[in-house]
Amino acid sequence: MRELLSIVNLTKAFSQFPSIGEKTAERMAYALLEMDQEQVQFLMSSIIDVKENIRHCPNCGALIDTSTCPYCNEERDHSTCIVVPYPKDIMIFEKMDNYHGTYHSLNGELSSIKGITINDLRINELKERIKKEGIKELILATNPTVEGETTALYIAKLFENDDVTITRLAHGIPIGSNIEYSDKLTLLKAIENRTKIK
Amino acid sequence: MRELLSIVNLTKAFSQFPSIGEKTAERMAYALLEMDQEQVQFLMSSIIDVKENIRHCPNCGALIDTSTCPYCNEERDHSTCIVVPYPKDIMIFEKMDNYHGTYHSLNGELSSIKGITINDLRINELKERIKKEGIKELILATNPTVEGETTALYIAKLFENDDVTITRLAHGIPIGSNIEYSDKLTLLKAIENRTKIK
Repeated sequence: MRELLSIVNLTKAFSQFPSIGEKTAERMAYALLEMDQEQVQFLMSSIIDVKENIRHCPNCGALIDTSTCPYCNEERDHSTCIVVPYPKDIMIFEKMDNYHGTYHSLNGELSSIKGITINDLRINELKERIKKEGIKELILATNPTVEGETTALYIAKLFENDDVTITRLAHGIPIGSNIEYSDKLTLLKAIENRTKIK
Repeated sequence: MRELLSIVNLTKAFSQFPSIGEKTAERMAYALLEMDQEQVQFLMSSIIDVKENIRHCPNCGALIDTSTCPYCNEERDHSTCIVVPYPKDIMIFEKMDNYHGTYHSLNGELSSIKGITINDLRINELKERIKKEGIKELILATNPTVEGETTALYIAKLFENDDVTITRLAHGIPIGSNIEYSDKLTLLKAIENRTKIK
């Protein structure tokens, strides 16, 4: 059988994305072929835009498209800091519209399966921020999974002797699922009922 | 909430693809952000390649990346022609590796819901090819759905008085599903047991 190399390559390129299987990737490649020039141009320029305009805040790790980070400025309450696994999780909390503290992205969760160790997480940066910014409370918002719980317990242990309160999101979030699928009310409840683990 | 415009746009761009919902599109946008330059470059160049190198054969409608069509050349048996709904369906039959006839893509199936009428299909081109190429048998390989059956019946009716045998793929393909999900053996069986409808 004659294979179209360009289609094979594009299928491979789309398969690089998480949750896109080979069959879906192939459908996408054929769909692109039928798109008009304008649609393809929009896709290409959006890809370039994302890579050029978005960067990580060196302090909190959030994804930003501005020169200064909107979550680290002086208008935010630096006494409370929500610790999230990934930068995109910050957006989920911002959608609540009633939290005015800061954030800290760990850029991962401890996982023996994925080989993510403590050195891969932004823990030292967090340690420094607690002193520098005078953080009084860390709200741990890691996922309610084995990896998330392990990470939370590790952080609680690490700051055992420091003058900082450590809380965990309440079990309002369904166990086993991911933060990004939680709705606004569930997240509000989870923050209200946060439990002290240290 | 502050939205990242570049991410919003890229999510919109990915949502243009069939079967990609908004949630999946957003995950893809964030995943792209974390890809290294090499991966993004591969994606971009694959998109450009597909749009630049692949075109439709003006005769059979197949997708080709060569100057002459490999399915319309003199080595193929021009007495038998498989009529498929879409160009990509040709690839599925080529995977069987034992059909040496030609193909004709209709570029669609009759559908009152999608507003696809007889004028949107490549029927006139098929009419001309029957005379010009001396096609003796048309094997209708439209999908076993309402749209596919309607299209098959319409074509059978249209060539009622012409000197061409019209057959339909046997019911080996599960009703309600799509040709592209059929395996090699099912397709072989379906061609072997094709039924005469005219």
